[in-house]
Amino acid sequence: MRLEDLDTPALVLDLDRVEANIQRLQSYCDSHGLALRPHIKTHKLPALAHKQIAAGAVGIACQKLGEVEVMLAAGITDILIPYNLVGRQKVERLARLAHLGTLSVSVDAESTARQMSAALAAEGATVGVLIELASTIERAGVSDLEEVVRLARLVDDLPGLIYRGVAIYPSNARNAPFLTAAIEALDAAGLHPTVVSGGGSPTMFHQHEVPGLTEVRIGTYIFEDMNGVRDGFFKLDECAATLLCTVVSTPTPDRVILDGGSKTLTTEGGAPHGYVVEFPEAKIYGLNEEHAFTNVSDCPVKPSLGDRVRIIPNHVCVAVNLHNVAYGVRGDHVEAIWPIAARGLVQ
Amino acid sequence: MRLEDLDTPALVLDLDRVEANIQRLQSYCDSHGLALRPHIKTHKLPALAHKQIAAGAVGIACQKLGEVEVMLAAGITDILIPYNLVGRQKVERLARLAHLGTLSVSVDAESTARQMSAALAAEGATVGVLIELASTIERAGVSDLEEVVRLARLVDDLPGLIYRGVAIYPSNARNAPFLTAAIEALDAAGLHPTVVSGGGSPTMFHQHEVPGLTEVRIGTYIFEDMNGVRDGFFKLDECAATLLCTVVSTPTPDRVILDGGSKTLTTEGGAPHGYVVEFPEAKIYGLNEEHAFTNVSDCPVKPSLGDRVRIIPNHVCVAVNLHNVAYGVRGDHVEAIWPIAARGLVQ
Repeated sequence: MRLEDLDTPALVLDLDRVEANIQRLQSYCDSHGLALRPHIKTHKLPALAHKQIAAGAVGIACQKLGEVEVMLAAGITDILIPYNLVGRQKVERLARLAHLGTLSVSVDAESTARQMSAALAAEGATVGVLIELASTIERAGVSDLEEVVRLARLVDDLPGLIYRGVAIYPSNARNAPFLTAAIEALDAAGLHPTVVSGGGSPTMFHQHEVPGLTEVRIGTYIFEDMNGVRDGFFKLDECAATLLCTVVSTPTPDRVILDGGSKTLTTEGGAPHGYVVEFPEAKIYGLNEEHAFTNVSDCPVKPSLGDRVRIIPNHVCVAVNLHNVAYGVRGDHVEAIWPIAARGLVQ
Repeated sequence: MRLEDLDTPALVLDLDRVEANIQRLQSYCDSHGLALRPHIKTHKLPALAHKQIAAGAVGIACQKLGEVEVMLAAGITDILIPYNLVGRQKVERLARLAHLGTLSVSVDAESTARQMSAALAAEGATVGVLIELASTIERAGVSDLEEVVRLARLVDDLPGLIYRGVAIYPSNARNAPFLTAAIEALDAAGLHPTVVSGGGSPTMFHQHEVPGLTEVRIGTYIFEDMNGVRDGFFKLDECAATLLCTVVSTPTPDRVILDGGSKTLTTEGGAPHGYVVEFPEAKIYGLNEEHAFTNVSDCPVKPSLGDRVRIIPNHVCVAVNLHNVAYGVRGDHVEAIWPIAARGLVQ
């Protein structure tokens, strides 16, 4: 099967680039003694998680228990869930899954830890726990050092929970001082964090500059995307995931319509909605659900009705999440047709 | 099973409201002699398409052949695809499907019509064809009256294609003059359009004011959403689709984190990202993939860790499209668990 045989729109993965991207970050982490734990929320594909593990990753990160279930079933057993799992359904499910692999989670509140502990103890299971630290993105996480120590001690004492250390996102220069202070406070309390887990694509090659970091969680590096290209931390010729689309209408000389819309690309990141590889001067200025409004007035040669083009999305993680199937290609040869096994498992 | 038994995030459909919404628009169309052809891109659920047909809809509209396949298999056979189907894979698939139901499509270009005709003729199949007219949204469609007539005559002559009339979107007051002119030009050429198909949620109860219209395609009315509430054409207490979410972190007195992010709601429409039913003063000011950043400073009683809330999304069609399963409820009783059969079928 060849690229030309695929119907559109289709999510196409350049496997040579995927493998080069995996290797590049792995080599960086290896050279600095950092464990790499790829976040699979970007691809949700067991086959790619296996490529990441084979290259040297210590395990993976998942954001959802549905993703964990898929990856456990695919034979990947060392999984961190850097997310507060709250609610009876969640903790009971975690407790059942904990027997099937080496799972760890992050927590930022006493009640979250206690509810989890109770479910795990009832099931006779254990999970590793990282205390989630607050950061400059002001999302979840503990911001008070005394509370960090108190929560770590509680986790260390509770049945079913094995205290491992701390997690922060992103682990960049701005968050390094608080991270260092937390490590020192925990050390002083006899609660040395053996795992200090960070992440964040923009500074992925500066993780060795963050004192105390032991582990890196990065997702988007496997595909890269236009958000990162425009912000200067990804490269256009390293982007590995594209949406193959067709010109389905040419209503005026300056406007063409592609068959990739907000249900193919998402509107995230705003206009321009991605980058058209074959027509770099084309600008996708608007999306409806199944239509991409494209201004081609600056194109020296304009796309014709029926032409097929590839679009690098703005934010690849949310674009991949829209698709049931990914096509892995080398050049024009379709090497793999993968159901995106962990997508849509929102719980 | 009750609402409290569902894990979060979960897409929850209030079936009493769904049925009332279906009935309201159907009654309007019936009273004005307009055929209603619901666009199922909003829900992608065969069970709801059947409710719409049972209420009096003449058939449905689908935007993708993958959706058509699901609906044909579910026993719904009168289907319009108001989309230019371009490419060998698409037209051959259309030709195969054309034997299974009464299909019609829209076209806006000679080559699109010719390619489709060739595939249908080869298969000994036929589809109805509407000429897609340009409109003020400047998407696809024919904008020149002579070209409208020329294309209609070509369609009328080509094997495999049965000329039916015209389609326009949206069919509102601004587009009525061109629609009227097109109908008059076609009538004058002996190509009377028996179907004049329009649509558009904002003016859904003004379709009878559009001269010549015979059929209305509307999708979002079945659920309604915050985009429409804020723009004044939907009502808050008619919104039928919500995302059930959990408060998973309360890092500061004024900020809570919900477990619904851009992979649950999409970022479309921007902040505020939906409406929190139980805490109307809460403002979801940011989304990461699995986190909703929520400002609760104006809430008289603030949400607690573990609380469950329902969010009405900004744009329900793209939010539904993220989920594998929808839960149909009446009050707190879960009446239906529906796989969203046609979602993710992007081709």
